[in-house]
Amino acid sequence: MNEFELIKNYFQKLSKKTSCALNLNDDVFFDKKKKLVVSVDTYIEGNHFLNFNKPDLVIKKIIRSSISDIICKGVKPKYYFISGSGNKKTFTKSNLLKISKSLNEEQNRYNILLSGGDTVFSNKLSFTITSIGFANDIIYRNKAKINDDIYVSGNLGDSYLGLLVLKKKVKLNKLLSKYFSNKYFMPNIKIELADELKNFASSSIDISDGLLADLDKLINSQKLSYKLNLKNIPISNNLKKILKNKKLSKINFISNGDDYQVLLTAPQSKRGIIKRISSKLGIKITKIGIIQNNSLKSSIIDLNNAVITLKNKGYSHKF
Amino acid sequence: MNEFELIKNYFQKLSKKTSCALNLNDDVFFDKKKKLVVSVDTYIEGNHFLNFNKPDLVIKKIIRSSISDIICKGVKPKYYFISGSGNKKTFTKSNLLKISKSLNEEQNRYNILLSGGDTVFSNKLSFTITSIGFANDIIYRNKAKINDDIYVSGNLGDSYLGLLVLKKKVKLNKLLSKYFSNKYFMPNIKIELADELKNFASSSIDISDGLLADLDKLINSQKLSYKLNLKNIPISNNLKKILKNKKLSKINFISNGDDYQVLLTAPQSKRGIIKRISSKLGIKITKIGIIQNNSLKSSIIDLNNAVITLKNKGYSHKF
Repeated sequence: MNEFELIKNYFQKLSKKTSCALNLNDDVFFDKKKKLVVSVDTYIEGNHFLNFNKPDLVIKKIIRSSISDIICKGVKPKYYFISGSGNKKTFTKSNLLKISKSLNEEQNRYNILLSGGDTVFSNKLSFTITSIGFANDIIYRNKAKINDDIYVSGNLGDSYLGLLVLKKKVKLNKLLSKYFSNKYFMPNIKIELADELKNFASSSIDISDGLLADLDKLINSQKLSYKLNLKNIPISNNLKKILKNKKLSKINFISNGDDYQVLLTAPQSKRGIIKRISSKLGIKITKIGIIQNNSLKSSIIDLNNAVITLKNKGYSHKF
Repeated sequence: MNEFELIKNYFQKLSKKTSCALNLNDDVFFDKKKKLVVSVDTYIEGNHFLNFNKPDLVIKKIIRSSISDIICKGVKPKYYFISGSGNKKTFTKSNLLKISKSLNEEQNRYNILLSGGDTVFSNKLSFTITSIGFANDIIYRNKAKINDDIYVSGNLGDSYLGLLVLKKKVKLNKLLSKYFSNKYFMPNIKIELADELKNFASSSIDISDGLLADLDKLINSQKLSYKLNLKNIPISNNLKKILKNKKLSKINFISNGDDYQVLLTAPQSKRGIIKRISSKLGIKITKIGIIQNNSLKSSIIDLNNAVITLKNKGYSHKF
């Protein structure tokens, strides 16, 4: 049973869709009347982060992952709550200082405020982050239309290569190791996009589980499919070099998640405004495919113009 | 280092007290401008609940514990978010059905709505509950005045005896075992009090860690102390009988926490209205002591009119 089935089978019915509140079928909770947006996520050592050797970086990663959920919906986060479970080894004075310093840096960078939480004793290290923002409206899932363009912000894949470096599955020089592991720990969340997305996006989600897994989620209640063009999926120059030098395949690097870029759909009429906003903010927003009727199967056109299918679409929470 | 020191030393400064938002020195977060009240708590197997043999009851306990934080502030909860970490053994289909059924019963009883959350894989079972309510104002900590009366709702100690029964440290007949373990799992949260508290309480908190520990928290930034009268501290007739039969001492049962009753202070001028509201709602609200200047030490007058001091004031989260 995956997370989606678990929610659908056991919890969906507990969340009646009222006139003002979303049910569980989106990344965030939104109460339109109260203008309240809430996201809750749990991060566990060995699962969502490898270990706690670098508490300062782990904390940055989980805060950014949490607020990314809200930002990709076109909303700026305001408050966050952190509930940490750990023991004497994980919550040493030195680590607490690092955690506190990192939180302070993230607060200044994203203009958010620690507003509460909990600390409990456990030999298993985990954090639950609740992020809250306020907005008159949000960008939903499942609002894409046939022939909408599919866009992604920034670059994909750097974070996954960073993870492979941290796991010692790929060996790079010091400079590149640092570059990619930093991309893994500190995704460059595009908070400046929050206020602009509503001007063009018909639907949006952030990429946490992987491009394809999150694209599936974005249209999961719709009778739609997608066609992506591998050539157009943006990757960094550093990643390009590594793929070339190590003869690795691009397709294996662009859908493994932890990118925290915004994945969105927009009508073709919005191409102009998207170019202008991308240029104004200095944020890359790349057209990577198109939404189509699901009489056509979802597909990816590879670098040789052949249609490819993937076995593993990304990270799925299994029970 | 206890939880209080941990917050003070490392996290207090991250939570600037703005004109509209509380800092970390209260049980709930309150944004007066947005009228938003938030409480976040984590519950871990072996710590906050013994085990998961009765998932239906554990879920009820943690939901009630979470909304109790908001209700004791004079606010009705509206939404809750549940983030569960577990594995295939804890999240079996049978357990998920029990969890879902329990949540549904709690939703109907307290008029709250599941609004989101997260499910992650972990061999350590834990839940984080975020509860949200809306209010123009809340009842704060640290607003008690000298000579204010101290009150508590309901009875204390039943839950602790229930825990001892579940731990097989006290043996009772089947009927009484059931009575006390139910008090442990399903504290009778006084949601009807939420709308009335603001009419008389000068400060309030819910009793989760224990009467004395929570009373200390209620006045922790004030130069105040308290005098309690053991004789007046309310316990159930069932507990009275057990204490008598087993020759157990009352003092050992009234401050071990998990009571989830409302502990509050009120000016002496409010005695009339408190009696009337207590009678109207059919909820016991008992005067158990008085707030005094801290030139006098906090004390408890025992059943023989002698002053007693306690070593262990209740549960404290240590790291």
